[in-house]
Amino acid sequence: MASSSEDKKFGYIPKDYVVPEDLDYLHITSNNTIYGTQHKSFPKVSVPLVCDMSSDIFSRKVDARQFALIYAGAQKNMGPAGATMVMIRKDFLEKNKSGLLTMLDYKTHVKAGSMFNTPPVFPVYVVMLTLRWLKKIGGVSAIEKINNEKAKLLYEEIDRNSMFEGTVISKEDRSTMNVCFRLRNESLEPEFDKMWKEANISGIRGHRDVGGYRASLYNALPIESVKVLIEVMQEFERKFA
Amino acid sequence: MASSSEDKKFGYIPKDYVVPEDLDYLHITSNNTIYGTQHKSFPKVSVPLVCDMSSDIFSRKVDARQFALIYAGAQKNMGPAGATMVMIRKDFLEKNKSGLLTMLDYKTHVKAGSMFNTPPVFPVYVVMLTLRWLKKIGGVSAIEKINNEKAKLLYEEIDRNSMFEGTVISKEDRSTMNVCFRLRNESLEPEFDKMWKEANISGIRGHRDVGGYRASLYNALPIESVKVLIEVMQEFERKFA
Repeated sequence: MASSSEDKKFGYIPKDYVVPEDLDYLHITSNNTIYGTQHKSFPKVSVPLVCDMSSDIFSRKVDARQFALIYAGAQKNMGPAGATMVMIRKDFLEKNKSGLLTMLDYKTHVKAGSMFNTPPVFPVYVVMLTLRWLKKIGGVSAIEKINNEKAKLLYEEIDRNSMFEGTVISKEDRSTMNVCFRLRNESLEPEFDKMWKEANISGIRGHRDVGGYRASLYNALPIESVKVLIEVMQEFERKFA
Repeated sequence: MASSSEDKKFGYIPKDYVVPEDLDYLHITSNNTIYGTQHKSFPKVSVPLVCDMSSDIFSRKVDARQFALIYAGAQKNMGPAGATMVMIRKDFLEKNKSGLLTMLDYKTHVKAGSMFNTPPVFPVYVVMLTLRWLKKIGGVSAIEKINNEKAKLLYEEIDRNSMFEGTVISKEDRSTMNVCFRLRNESLEPEFDKMWKEANISGIRGHRDVGGYRASLYNALPIESVKVLIEVMQEFERKFA
């Protein structure tokens, strides 16, 4: 491992770490869904950079040229679980060590046009429909603006509202996809839970390893849903502050 | 390879071959979708028997106890492509050599309750619906009767009709799932193709490696569809015999 923020409960994105020049590659995950951190820029390294973009692919513009390999499970911003998109730079593909098992060698799948195995047709089809929708509303640059606006509204409320606090230590690393926060007084959780459930909000309990709350703002979530949560947070403050 | 019927274009199921007793396992495929042959019974061997049942799972009753491992892609009789069912006998699972890559070791998936990776939710859901439907109509023994009836009707017509011939050499190995046949006079293919297309039949051209015709009679295909094809074959005979 080149670096870790485990010392502070993964509350920031490590920076300024040294990457040995003899590495085969450096692997990063662009967005941490559990702790709500996100790479706003990517490390400049001389070794090939490999990135798991499963949870923020197509949420913002990214210069793909800085990566040797990008992969992303469909299930966050692309479509149903069961398909994974892989982009690999040709020179990195050629560097693949021989001796890899057939199915694990990306060359197998490139050669067969991604149909070496029977493809998961339905998930791939829904990814196509989702990408057509994204294109129609203005593409990645349009959804990026919407995503930034959604995250800005919610983080502003978290910082303003006396009942809550964000869990990411370094504000500049806060994810636009997964907004993690908790109650300053955790004994009030049952009260807060009751209120957001009554507002027909679902799925904002934090990851089982972390607790607290996590609002996921993936591409499919409209800004109206964020506003409903903010209203609940404000109502909660009026009642319990 | 323990045995092959390549000498006769895979037109029969090899039998009476000798299986070395020091094999780790013997692998068979219960049904050959391309050439239309099917194991009606399975080899009695002292080594663990592994079976790919992708194309005839849940089409007929099978005594699972004779297998150490059964696997089947969902896309024929279970649901949409993208999920695979694996049944493995506990003692065979334990025999797994250590040193397998995490994802390729069935122990990983058994331990994690098949959720080590994000499961392909939609394909799994449709498999559930399909199995509920199967249960409702009387289960595997009910569908087996229907499948046998569908195959019997079609093979009888192939054998009776002067224009056609079956491509499987040994009739006892004929598949109930994939019925392969060809025209005795192949120059009439354009005429026959026109007729079945007009009857709204689709997908009966043989596999690209084989040519001829292949009618797939998977669980989802109603007996009425088989009767439509038979009518077209009879009409074809009346016109061109």
